Amino acid sequence: MTQAVGIADIRAAQARLAGHIRRTPMLSSPALDAIAGRKVLVKAEALQHTGSFKARGGWSAVSALSDAARARGVIAYSSGNHAQGVARAAQAHGAPALIVMPSDAPEIKISNTRALGAEVLLYDRATEDREAVGRDQSEARGLTLIRPYDDPQVIAGQGTTGLEIAEQAAEASVAAADVLVCCGGGGLSAGIALALQDQSPGLRVRTVEPALFDDMARSLALGQSVENAARTGSICDAILTPAPGKLTLPILSALAGAGLVVSEDDVLRTMALAFTHLKLVLEPGGAVALAAALFQPQQIDGESVIVVATGGNVSPETFARALSRGPDPASP
Amino acid sequence: MTQAVGIADIRAAQARLAGHIRRTPMLSSPALDAIAGRKVLVKAEALQHTGSFKARGGWSAVSALSDAARARGVIAYSSGNHAQGVARAAQAHGAPALIVMPSDAPEIKISNTRALGAEVLLYDRATEDREAVGRDQSEARGLTLIRPYDDPQVIAGQGTTGLEIAEQAAEASVAAADVLVCCGGGGLSAGIALALQDQSPGLRVRTVEPALFDDMARSLALGQSVENAARTGSICDAILTPAPGKLTLPILSALAGAGLVVSEDDVLRTMALAFTHLKLVLEPGGAVALAAALFQPQQIDGESVIVVATGGNVSPETFARALSRGPDPASP
Repeated sequence: MTQAVGIADIRAAQARLAGHIRRTPMLSSPALDAIAGRKVLVKAEALQHTGSFKARGGWSAVSALSDAARARGVIAYSSGNHAQGVARAAQAHGAPALIVMPSDAPEIKISNTRALGAEVLLYDRATEDREAVGRDQSEARGLTLIRPYDDPQVIAGQGTTGLEIAEQAAEASVAAADVLVCCGGGGLSAGIALALQDQSPGLRVRTVEPALFDDMARSLALGQSVENAARTGSICDAILTPAPGKLTLPILSALAGAGLVVSEDDVLRTMALAFTHLKLVLEPGGAVALAAALFQPQQIDGESVIVVATGGNVSPETFARALSRGPDPASP
Repeated sequence: MTQAVGIADIRAAQARLAGHIRRTPMLSSPALDAIAGRKVLVKAEALQHTGSFKARGGWSAVSALSDAARARGVIAYSSGNHAQGVARAAQAHGAPALIVMPSDAPEIKISNTRALGAEVLLYDRATEDREAVGRDQSEARGLTLIRPYDDPQVIAGQGTTGLEIAEQAAEASVAAADVLVCCGGGGLSAGIALALQDQSPGLRVRTVEPALFDDMARSLALGQSVENAARTGSICDAILTPAPGKLTLPILSALAGAGLVVSEDDVLRTMALAFTHLKLVLEPGGAVALAAALFQPQQIDGESVIVVATGGNVSPETFARALSRGPDPASP
């Protein structure tokens, strides 16, 4: 089948991102290797601008617009990381940005998005439909909608992470490994999978999701898109999506291995371990891939594993909860 | 006067460190720039192997030994970061390492040092002299003492941080700025000052210390070495030294600007801000330079400031205390 995105799109996005996006480091720690039973390389996208990889896709999409569309502006629906990624890119390009956020979003995410110059429109999750809230203004002003994962330019932007992983794996002499990626709608996983297919085919993407929100793992296993029963109820707020993306599932079906699923308790343990051994702040949704590497080693092949630590936008309260939980297994 | 260390030593150390030490990233955040009133570039040495820049000096010193001396082994006195830096280097070189640590050192630092293959000898701070504790074994086994800062090869190793800062400042188009460095004995500050004098003379080192432990600031102001009255009693445990180093003070007197001093409360606020805006875990002693940039802007010159965030080896309890303190000013 023909895919909506290819390596040429990712290369083009990389050229547009140059100088505006960090080449995040690949971290490691002997202590984490010992827990996992193999070498663990951690691509630290929490250190990306805005605290997550979403700055890549936002920049890619905004920079790909025509001058006229950019002058009219962009709109995004997001309670968190995608909002900040789009807002930063729009601000830097001088494009107006309207971000539609739930009124119960964390105050820090609302204020961070405003600090990046975006106009924030709040809606009531219980009584209002977010698309209806945004539609009037969007139509009146001719704003371009930037979807969080089902957008070819967004997938291409996230895919630049994969180009860096291919280079950094080669520097670490790793030619064959599973590449575990935290997965919501699958934009990052799909982009990385496309980049690795071209640049380092011995590296294979595997999605990682929290328990009860394993729509991608089940869809990959069944060969067709299935939804989650639940819509809320996990600390991994950044990666809770109802179903796989329409553009991303075909790419991952063709290129990715079996999906992995981790427990919420293992996510908290992993946040404590990243604190102690990597000095890295991870949000729950950004820690699921590392959690799989550490606590499901039997599900992984090879002498090394690469994980993408996707974001660090977490409240002090949730982080303190992970620290007080600590890294040790639960008592029986 | 002739200095004990020069740029040639730093270049030679850089060659020995290649492939074994991370080129840590230079991070930044618009939110921190807004607080400081100027661009703030943060050299994230907390992301270095072992969680602090001490891995550089340890590697430099161990790799500079003769084969015979290395085969006999090394000894270091340290309760923390220097211990881990020396232990890692010794382990990688196949050299025995004896680390003399106080019996009341945090269990995590003792176990981390042992996990790096070192033999740990504990002593009672109240009743024993640590040098006496180490002397017998050191003499019997012919171990080479690696001092934490008054050692030319250690200063040269820490100075490699300065070579990277010069490159990264140029990439960010910063040619003139104060470079704030967390300071204990002054090994890192002196090494960076030497590197910058050669590579980027518009960048000027300024030491930063916690209140009551400002021996370097007072010594630089007076033109002679003075001691601290206190020996303990600050959360900035990693940088509490009784007096400036004998090798480091002359270097800093020649090259550094006036020293800065920060309060413990501002250090806690800074740790919370680095968590929120950089996703970086900092220990108190590793946060003092950033604290000065954020909360003493009137003491700093220029449109940009560079700070070295030197380490992240902090207990969950102390970190949680910083998070619950939060970033805001104290109530009047």
